[in-house]
Amino acid sequence: MFDSANLDHRIDKATFQREERKLREELLHAQYDIKENGTFPVVILIAGVEGAGKGETVNLLNEWMDPRHIRTHAFPDLSDEERERPLMWRYWRALPPKGSIGIFFGAWHTEPIVLRVQGTISRRELGQYTGEIQRLEKMLIEEGVLLVKFWFHLSKDQQKKRLKALEKDPKTAWRVTDLEWKYFKRYDKFVKVCEPFLRETSTGEAPWIVVPGMDPHYRALTVGRHLLTAMRARLHPKAQKANRTAMPPVQPLLPPADRLNVLRALKLDRDMTRKSYARELDKWQGRLNLLTRDKRYKRLSVVTVFEGNDAAGKGGAIRRVTGALDARSYHNVSVAAPTQEERAQPYLWRFWRHIPRRGRITIFDRSWYGRVLVERVEKFCSEADWMRAYSEINDFEQQLADHNVVLVKFWLAISKQEQYKRFKARELVSFKRFKITEEDWRNRKKWDAYEIAVSEMVDRTSTAMAPWTLVEANNKYHARIKVLKTMVAAIESGLKRMDGKP
Amino acid sequence: MFDSANLDHRIDKATFQREERKLREELLHAQYDIKENGTFPVVILIAGVEGAGKGETVNLLNEWMDPRHIRTHAFPDLSDEERERPLMWRYWRALPPKGSIGIFFGAWHTEPIVLRVQGTISRRELGQYTGEIQRLEKMLIEEGVLLVKFWFHLSKDQQKKRLKALEKDPKTAWRVTDLEWKYFKRYDKFVKVCEPFLRETSTGEAPWIVVPGMDPHYRALTVGRHLLTAMRARLHPKAQKANRTAMPPVQPLLPPADRLNVLRALKLDRDMTRKSYARELDKWQGRLNLLTRDKRYKRLSVVTVFEGNDAAGKGGAIRRVTGALDARSYHNVSVAAPTQEERAQPYLWRFWRHIPRRGRITIFDRSWYGRVLVERVEKFCSEADWMRAYSEINDFEQQLADHNVVLVKFWLAISKQEQYKRFKARELVSFKRFKITEEDWRNRKKWDAYEIAVSEMVDRTSTAMAPWTLVEANNKYHARIKVLKTMVAAIESGLKRMDGKP
Repeated sequence: MFDSANLDHRIDKATFQREERKLREELLHAQYDIKENGTFPVVILIAGVEGAGKGETVNLLNEWMDPRHIRTHAFPDLSDEERERPLMWRYWRALPPKGSIGIFFGAWHTEPIVLRVQGTISRRELGQYTGEIQRLEKMLIEEGVLLVKFWFHLSKDQQKKRLKALEKDPKTAWRVTDLEWKYFKRYDKFVKVCEPFLRETSTGEAPWIVVPGMDPHYRALTVGRHLLTAMRARLHPKAQKANRTAMPPVQPLLPPADRLNVLRALKLDRDMTRKSYARELDKWQGRLNLLTRDKRYKRLSVVTVFEGNDAAGKGGAIRRVTGALDARSYHNVSVAAPTQEERAQPYLWRFWRHIPRRGRITIFDRSWYGRVLVERVEKFCSEADWMRAYSEINDFEQQLADHNVVLVKFWLAISKQEQYKRFKARELVSFKRFKITEEDWRNRKKWDAYEIAVSEMVDRTSTAMAPWTLVEANNKYHARIKVLKTMVAAIESGLKRMDGKP
Repeated sequence: MFDSANLDHRIDKATFQREERKLREELLHAQYDIKENGTFPVVILIAGVEGAGKGETVNLLNEWMDPRHIRTHAFPDLSDEERERPLMWRYWRALPPKGSIGIFFGAWHTEPIVLRVQGTISRRELGQYTGEIQRLEKMLIEEGVLLVKFWFHLSKDQQKKRLKALEKDPKTAWRVTDLEWKYFKRYDKFVKVCEPFLRETSTGEAPWIVVPGMDPHYRALTVGRHLLTAMRARLHPKAQKANRTAMPPVQPLLPPADRLNVLRALKLDRDMTRKSYARELDKWQGRLNLLTRDKRYKRLSVVTVFEGNDAAGKGGAIRRVTGALDARSYHNVSVAAPTQEERAQPYLWRFWRHIPRRGRITIFDRSWYGRVLVERVEKFCSEADWMRAYSEINDFEQQLADHNVVLVKFWLAISKQEQYKRFKARELVSFKRFKITEEDWRNRKKWDAYEIAVSEMVDRTSTAMAPWTLVEANNKYHARIKVLKTMVAAIESGLKRMDGKP
């Protein structure tokens, strides 16, 4: 893996200066072309051994290109904000929008490698991390991100020489601390861990580029030329086109042969009188409120998703939930068409940004499931896009669940007749008229297509860690109480799981 | 995940018979179209819970279509032959050629699930298996395989009912043994393991289709219709075209900025006199022979790869190795253009078939590295194909290494001048004239392109478990002794690793 990098690569100063002049001009052009093109972002990963010139290279990239459109992110120890959310949250937060460049100085690769070198995790456990990273990078690439990964390498002798040289020079001596020498002692172990890791996370679309770090000229030219070639290749009209045709072909899904699905199996009419509703509401709102004041509650967070037919009563149900909560402890996110800022990011970005800290609740009124519902039915995205969304969503929710996020997902279901009744009623009541538009009537015509989409969504994303609850909602009272009860049960079992955990 | 499948799906007999008639005719047509088309094979995976009608469905598929072009493989306990090779060998062996259909009754998914249900491996260890399966299926799909995955499901109640019903009927009672009831007791654990596993191995290109197993009519139609749709979609001209354009675009690799690479860094002229060669040859052939008679040797196997410039002396070096071996213990594989049978399979298939049993050596004269050497340089395959080959080859070699296969890979390097001398000499000696053709002279013109390809091959596939040894071969004596020494060292350390292993 490091055979070439261990060689004594050198570029003399004159050659470097001549090459550098051309290179920086071309890099700047490519950067502006990407900005103008505006269809993809560039993420540059900088990783590798200590003392191999990572920092110098990042500075150089910022010097060569227009730094106003580059954002460099280092990822030091986790902040409070970050610790209280899944690990990947910090990287999602840092993703550059389409048309711009993000330099990630250390990223999702760092932690697993460090943990393995320390011996905290086993080789097989590292394999689990590797799988997660492969899926994350696959998703980024499928979302159009140009991912360029540089691994800075020094042989053991070279690293020793570099550290000594840095130590000797008063201007750089501060950079060599005991920590650097501690790392040096682990050199062999480090390389032994990194080599298979690099191998398994190298793909045709995002190969690791191993950069020999000893000679500053050689190292700089290597990074610059690779980056330029990758950007140019991606700007090429052929690549731009290729990226839009999905491959390999997606396998079509079919509705059940007997047309029976989870929605049709529901008994939508459930009785509940106003009187018993009032009693139950009191009871379950009280229990919910009590739970959020449990000590253990501060160590988990809650994400609630409300999806459902138009006019199924999502808003009403949400109000009954928030009515039981301290206003400082929850956050309502109403999902509509994406903003310009959100359109410039991978699909899940706009949901990641709303993931709550510990001890808090986020309530999504419509959610990331839009991709496999409205976007699928209305053909706002390609079949390949919504098909891959199932596994991306499952990965996303797995990360939440792994981080003690209690996920509660509701589908509020009403019958086609009930919907008609409610639409008509809304048209009659002036203060509710804003709630019924032409679009609602149009959606209604696609009832069957939505039914199939919902049923497949439940089949492919209802999981033990994040189950869907289907709510029979022809009777609003019944629906609201079922929502509250389900939330209470989910949070209770979340709290129980916290027992004995730090 | 199993929400829909838990519902009480039913198809009445009359509907079934009517539908079945249409379906089997269309399936037969699709099967023949695939045969005629001849560009891709179909692999049908049949998995899931006991008693859910897997066997009946496999029989039905064979009844509906032309069984002469279907091969059904069950994978019972490992045979001797299989146990002595990496786990995946049995599945590679069973892959159907392009144009035909293979039904895998249980496959690579079975073992990890069983091990996890038994508690033999941890959740994270299962994650490692999952990663391997994801990479395997990705590779199959990129090689053009149509992979259709059926998961047969029963709810706990349904499984109990099915087992009781089978037990009661004298014709089927034999199928329900203590083992089936033992499995039943683990139902909850089984489902708990399978659900995340299915989720993580479901992709847009090869989603798991969950088949409710209770009603035989419903189950049969579900499988038949999905299979038909998948085959038809794949035969569609658009899909055929999409499959040939790589997406997303591959990132181009660049040669080093200073043109220094592992080959140029070699000192090709090494001295060795005829006399000291004779002495050394005796010594190292003797040691090699002794090692192959070590007790521990019976528990590992050896795969040796010889690559090198034309006329670098591969043949001569191989003969010095085999000269030290018992003729019954090794197998020579000379890799030339693939046969028709081999062309109908994924790229690595023709190498998998030659993987030796324990205690044996396979010597490859040229190898799977052809894809990143001659096929790359001569453009016999696309850039995307050879770029993904690096990770596929690394995965392949990892599987060999994990199974106690000692891998020794040689690149025999001579200078351009030395090659010219040897070519000319061959033309003069009548019995060597067959060894020099027009093609050799043509290849020579692409010297630089080959140099880059070799250097990148070493960088991307020289790993701790399977390192490349570059052999300076201007002097044949030196080259042959270095080959023998390297093999001795590799086998010695392989034997040491066997100490304490069963």
